[in-house]
Amino acid sequence: MSKSRLPLNDAAVCAYAPVIREPLSTAAAADIAAKLKALSDPVRLRLFSLVASHAGGEACVCDISGDFDVTQPTISHHLKVLKDAGLLVSERRGSWVYYSVRTETLMTLSSVLSTVAADDATTGAPA
Amino acid sequence: MSKSRLPLNDAAVCAYAPVIREPLSTAAAADIAAKLKALSDPVRLRLFSLVASHAGGEACVCDISGDFDVTQPTISHHLKVLKDAGLLVSERRGSWVYYSVRTETLMTLSSVLSTVAADDATTGAPA
Repeated sequence: MSKSRLPLNDAAVCAYAPVIREPLSTAAAADIAAKLKALSDPVRLRLFSLVASHAGGEACVCDISGDFDVTQPTISHHLKVLKDAGLLVSERRGSWVYYSVRTETLMTLSSVLSTVAADDATTGAPA
Repeated sequence: MSKSRLPLNDAAVCAYAPVIREPLSTAAAADIAAKLKALSDPVRLRLFSLVASHAGGEACVCDISGDFDVTQPTISHHLKVLKDAGLLVSERRGSWVYYSVRTETLMTLSSVLSTVAADDATTGAPA
């Protein structure tokens, strides 16, 4: 876009666009940001995706360690972070620990993002 | 759940669950993780949500600075991080800069998360 001044908008006050829905509250933003942060590490996101890609959205820890170029303690740390953030749950059965995706948390995150996208599509914001 | 051993699963090998779809590739995970990281700061997420809550998914920078207990340079930094991650676009009109949500990026993120959630719901994983 040209940097020349546009007469219609070249005012001391901005062209005000009203707020048409409630933005995230401070508390909600803190909660959602913490969950997104847990998914914002590339190895952790791949681990999470791998668990989710197993039948039933559940994987044995013995079955998700071979695909990553990191140590087992690092994988355990990443799984703990995902669990602490409410993205995975774990259950011990016999000798092994099984990790499952918490669908509810995923749907909440997806919903927050898709609401924003849907609102923009409806109101004609540029993509 | 009781920690007592369950006979059916108390074996040296785990109860194998097959991978039923392709997990995120290393490249895709790096790209998505970077976008999630940009949204994983609470103030940045609130800023993003506030822009998205304006009519047309667009807000003047002059109109989004008053609601945060941080300095204007900090807000500018956060907006730049969101822009660099492909979550916002900016456009100067006259004296002011306007920020818009990149709907395409949001829909991609939402889709990644909802696919996981939908697969789990279908296959009956615990929520």
